[in-house]
Amino acid sequence: MPGRIQSVERAAAVLRLLAAAGRRLGVAELATALGLPKATVHGILRTLQHVGFVEQEEHSGKYHLGAALLHLGNSYLDVNELRTRALNWSDALATRSGESVRIGVPHEEQVLLVHHVFRPDDSFQVLDVGALLPVHATALGKVLLAYAPHTAGAPEEMADLKAFTSRTITSGGHLLAELAGVRDRGWACDLEEMVEGEVSVAAPIRDGRGHTVGAIGVSGAVERLCDDREPRRDIVSYVRDAARAISRDLGENRR
Amino acid sequence: MPGRIQSVERAAAVLRLLAAAGRRLGVAELATALGLPKATVHGILRTLQHVGFVEQEEHSGKYHLGAALLHLGNSYLDVNELRTRALNWSDALATRSGESVRIGVPHEEQVLLVHHVFRPDDSFQVLDVGALLPVHATALGKVLLAYAPHTAGAPEEMADLKAFTSRTITSGGHLLAELAGVRDRGWACDLEEMVEGEVSVAAPIRDGRGHTVGAIGVSGAVERLCDDREPRRDIVSYVRDAARAISRDLGENRR
Repeated sequence: MPGRIQSVERAAAVLRLLAAAGRRLGVAELATALGLPKATVHGILRTLQHVGFVEQEEHSGKYHLGAALLHLGNSYLDVNELRTRALNWSDALATRSGESVRIGVPHEEQVLLVHHVFRPDDSFQVLDVGALLPVHATALGKVLLAYAPHTAGAPEEMADLKAFTSRTITSGGHLLAELAGVRDRGWACDLEEMVEGEVSVAAPIRDGRGHTVGAIGVSGAVERLCDDREPRRDIVSYVRDAARAISRDLGENRR
Repeated sequence: MPGRIQSVERAAAVLRLLAAAGRRLGVAELATALGLPKATVHGILRTLQHVGFVEQEEHSGKYHLGAALLHLGNSYLDVNELRTRALNWSDALATRSGESVRIGVPHEEQVLLVHHVFRPDDSFQVLDVGALLPVHATALGKVLLAYAPHTAGAPEEMADLKAFTSRTITSGGHLLAELAGVRDRGWACDLEEMVEGEVSVAAPIRDGRGHTVGAIGVSGAVERLCDDREPRRDIVSYVRDAARAISRDLGENRR
């Protein structure tokens, strides 16, 4: 790997493994997963601990991700231009639709949520920023697949389309037809394909060169967002209005 | 630095600089700040870009933090035991107090917010998770300084107590007296010391060994949270109830 630094790549691999595991891991587990000697992994962990990227649990000696990463993730959001431009439009969309609003960008063939406005009522809601969603079962993901396939992964190569509900699209052929429909209409929806009883509607956000760089959408109960098993026309228009407004702010029409 | 890997430490330093800058930085700026040759910094950046930890802006060639860090930060929260134990109690505290609730842990002599429950009304609020607050001007920070000074930095060495409002404590002597009062009462408050018109009240969260590992608090308008320029007794009792409940869940009384 000319020009890249092996130890930095290995350190990144350790952090990814800890994130994917969702639990603490020991040196031996990490060494096995990476195919590296324990002493090598131990040196990486000691360094990552020193810089605050991992922490060691005292009684078990196992490792988990460190607090410094939370701050770095937050700093990523601060300089994210798409998110900055989208803040006011997302609030307005939540007000108009009465539903929660989320913005996603392509990341490792999934949708990374970079912004989330809660549904404007007093219910407790869990923040999804930083979470990854599957592309084939969400409106945000279908928009990215339809308009930015080079970043979101080619649908015909997506062998493993996991079923989340009985309505999830699990065949590559069906998904390709769905994406053609998205490009035709200019927006995407998921009708209880990710979570039973929940519907989402999304539209593309484009940058100054006309490239789709993200998607914005609303999601909520099927009883509120649908008429006769179709997304309400007014909800669709609010989502597309917001997507166009953000695209304009990103310079779409100035190219 | 025996046992630590220099290139990994340098890569971490690059990420910290990008986070602290709050804007994109070029190779030359980073090289100057780190006191390293440009070629060395370039190799680090290329590797960090390959693993998704930094991204390069096409037209300027400058670098900013990458989306992978947002997901790693989110994964840190998933395995954070304090936060997991605190979720239900934080929601209950927001309901009882009618105000927003935040949980902070010590991080690099500041308060890192690991959880934030919005004020239970329909106003738009900005999520603070991942943000860093100063220790001397917030109730959360005073709790950490009073009970966990080894992790939060020694107040007598805090030369630079920045004034955020006219009420911020800026003298080390005053701060030490304030912290003695915190330990005496068992809770801390900030009376418009960080933001004009805003008051916060916080209490310590202790782990199974009795060590203070974090703080939980409410913050809101001085008109709602204070009677006669003192935090309302019921608000203080709600905060302390929640802190004790979380500490109990973390095993405080099982030692």
